[in-house]
Amino acid sequence: MSHERFLSRAAAAMQPSPIRQMGAVAAQRADVISFAPGYPGPDAFAWEAYRTIADRVLARRDRDLLQYGPTRGYPPLIDALQTLHAARDITAERDEILVTTGSQQGLDLVSRTLIDPGDVVLVELPSYTGAILAFRNAQAALVGIRQEADGIDLTDLDRTLHDLRSKGRRVKFLYVVPNFQNPTGLLMSLAKRRALLAWAMREQVLIVEDDPYGALYFDDAAKASETRSIKADDPDGWVIYLSSLSKTLAPAFRTAWVVASPTLAMRMELAKQATDLCTGNFDQRLVLEAIRDGVLESRLPTLREYYRTKRVVMEEALRAEIGDAVRWPAPRGGFFLWASLAPPLDAPTLLPFALNQGVTFVVGHAFFIDHGGGPFMRLAFSLPTHDQIREGVRRLGAAVREAQASAAVSPARET
Amino acid sequence: MSHERFLSRAAAAMQPSPIRQMGAVAAQRADVISFAPGYPGPDAFAWEAYRTIADRVLARRDRDLLQYGPTRGYPPLIDALQTLHAARDITAERDEILVTTGSQQGLDLVSRTLIDPGDVVLVELPSYTGAILAFRNAQAALVGIRQEADGIDLTDLDRTLHDLRSKGRRVKFLYVVPNFQNPTGLLMSLAKRRALLAWAMREQVLIVEDDPYGALYFDDAAKASETRSIKADDPDGWVIYLSSLSKTLAPAFRTAWVVASPTLAMRMELAKQATDLCTGNFDQRLVLEAIRDGVLESRLPTLREYYRTKRVVMEEALRAEIGDAVRWPAPRGGFFLWASLAPPLDAPTLLPFALNQGVTFVVGHAFFIDHGGGPFMRLAFSLPTHDQIREGVRRLGAAVREAQASAAVSPARET
Repeated sequence: MSHERFLSRAAAAMQPSPIRQMGAVAAQRADVISFAPGYPGPDAFAWEAYRTIADRVLARRDRDLLQYGPTRGYPPLIDALQTLHAARDITAERDEILVTTGSQQGLDLVSRTLIDPGDVVLVELPSYTGAILAFRNAQAALVGIRQEADGIDLTDLDRTLHDLRSKGRRVKFLYVVPNFQNPTGLLMSLAKRRALLAWAMREQVLIVEDDPYGALYFDDAAKASETRSIKADDPDGWVIYLSSLSKTLAPAFRTAWVVASPTLAMRMELAKQATDLCTGNFDQRLVLEAIRDGVLESRLPTLREYYRTKRVVMEEALRAEIGDAVRWPAPRGGFFLWASLAPPLDAPTLLPFALNQGVTFVVGHAFFIDHGGGPFMRLAFSLPTHDQIREGVRRLGAAVREAQASAAVSPARET
Repeated sequence: MSHERFLSRAAAAMQPSPIRQMGAVAAQRADVISFAPGYPGPDAFAWEAYRTIADRVLARRDRDLLQYGPTRGYPPLIDALQTLHAARDITAERDEILVTTGSQQGLDLVSRTLIDPGDVVLVELPSYTGAILAFRNAQAALVGIRQEADGIDLTDLDRTLHDLRSKGRRVKFLYVVPNFQNPTGLLMSLAKRRALLAWAMREQVLIVEDDPYGALYFDDAAKASETRSIKADDPDGWVIYLSSLSKTLAPAFRTAWVVASPTLAMRMELAKQATDLCTGNFDQRLVLEAIRDGVLESRLPTLREYYRTKRVVMEEALRAEIGDAVRWPAPRGGFFLWASLAPPLDAPTLLPFALNQGVTFVVGHAFFIDHGGGPFMRLAFSLPTHDQIREGVRRLGAAVREAQASAAVSPARET
């Protein structure tokens, strides 16, 4: 009995995450160097601090520590998030904050709270796969908006919105990752952020602003002031802001949060009650103590330099090995380099050659909603060591040359 | 701007959990004794073991420990769950198991994977609120089935199914908690379990079997063999089995699991990818090490006695204080005592008197889908100490007498 016929329509249409699939492929071969997952480097984790903190909080035997907790989140952690917000110029009352089990849960709760089947959600082209999956599972109709070097194309945004409305479509929100976007690494200009907020208020469309990477700007390419969130200038709750501690503390603690208007935050809390009751209390306590002990704040400069250096190593290796065959916008922060292959080579053609050489990446079309993205590869430099980056790019270079040679000897396709 | 008009239909209809609401009320007054939440007693947690384990795993600096993990769950934990299954006579391959972020996530994934809006889900009357919320959020139509002293009423089940089918309704699954049901504490007889499985196969309806309390039977009232799961006798995947370590290890680790046919387990995994990517890796590792160290197995006899004794204390106190005003089926395991008030008093009338006296409980109608349940209170004896149970029941007795006196002096209602 396969029970296929019992599936809901949403479940029958669900697609696996291409990033997770690629991760599974890489996990099967210990010798593969993977540029696929957007994972932080584990040598950058504050191992000793967590060991001290875990011991300290367990020794106290606080009767709430290992118990179920409030769906909203552990109240002292919510207070600490307000302090983090102050440093980001975001003002949010307690009833505007909801702790989530990773930002992925935030995206899921946003989807369930806002999307009826057929509602339009606007996304940047390309955009983060996890968000696309969450919106699709709520049966949203996704429509893409082009990006330029300084972020979303406002002309395309306006034209698309009016075109959709002229067809009677309801547009619920626009999803953006202004800081070091996944997958492109682009930084949206401050002027565009201001214009987006004005657009949202004028057109009565919500903005979902996802900001996992904002603290990880590279000193040689961006300033902290350039990462100012759209939310910071939003007095009326037009922006739903998501952020996370997965990239700066550790993903295992699954601690992220949403800032939204009290109405929307309350509905998301109700959705979360039925989704996982509460985010893990022990995890929340570890994260809170790490913030209180200054672990987060004191490590940020180190982390910025840690990832900046990896980006430099990857860029130098790419220039040396395949500078003629790939181009990319310089990453100004975050985890990703978005490389485009010189035609006629494309990423799906390259991938089997790359796997054969022992290196992998995520093909660009995973981040598009329209099967575009053929020339693109997302190369994450966050996880591998410097040596692995150099060796991985060397293998990628070998794969590119093999793929080019193979194309050269293939019979020309009829067109 | 309240943004109400942006809500999805599902979100606009979401209701708060009455259990969580009551928890919030109790949390505001330190002097209130709460019989509301189904929380394990924190003095029963293996504090020292978790301290040792946390230190050990963090000291190792395994590079996967604080990282994102596979959506399916940490593979060695899945292996350990197979060993737990063997003790429960359940056979499940790896591709039939999915680790979830608490059993609440299991219920949510089941809902999203199986329910289209309008599909019928059958539930016991009364049934677990968290399940009701998850099914409702997927826009299921809930239909209740009566229970008898030995569990679900099979005649009512058959009649209801055929009635629904004659009206052209699609019935997706039946949700049951055979072991020490939440809220009634009832234990379904083995004969009924066998009959249910035969019914499911004959009628082609799935069974969702939720088993958080099975290991917590009381030696003076039930035998391990009486908790045998329906899943244990299901060769063809008609049963989706959920279990959890929240009641036996600790809720904070948010580690539970689902067993389902490979097809359904794979779809639930896809749904989980977009829901929270993965259950916390650190939590999963703590739980795994606790299982490997024998913490779980060795503590079960202690836990059974710990909760059995609390049940005895509560029953003795109830008999002494309000034996004339309440009746209940003897809990044979688990966390709950399901008390019914002698007419004309009902639980919603009693509740304000109880709060005024400094004691609280969950009113019965929270567990019904049809606004029934007026006479019932769910009294959880799992969390309070013996002294708190005695004092709480004393206060409850005072509240009952006040409510009865108040009713006696109220003008008779016209009928």
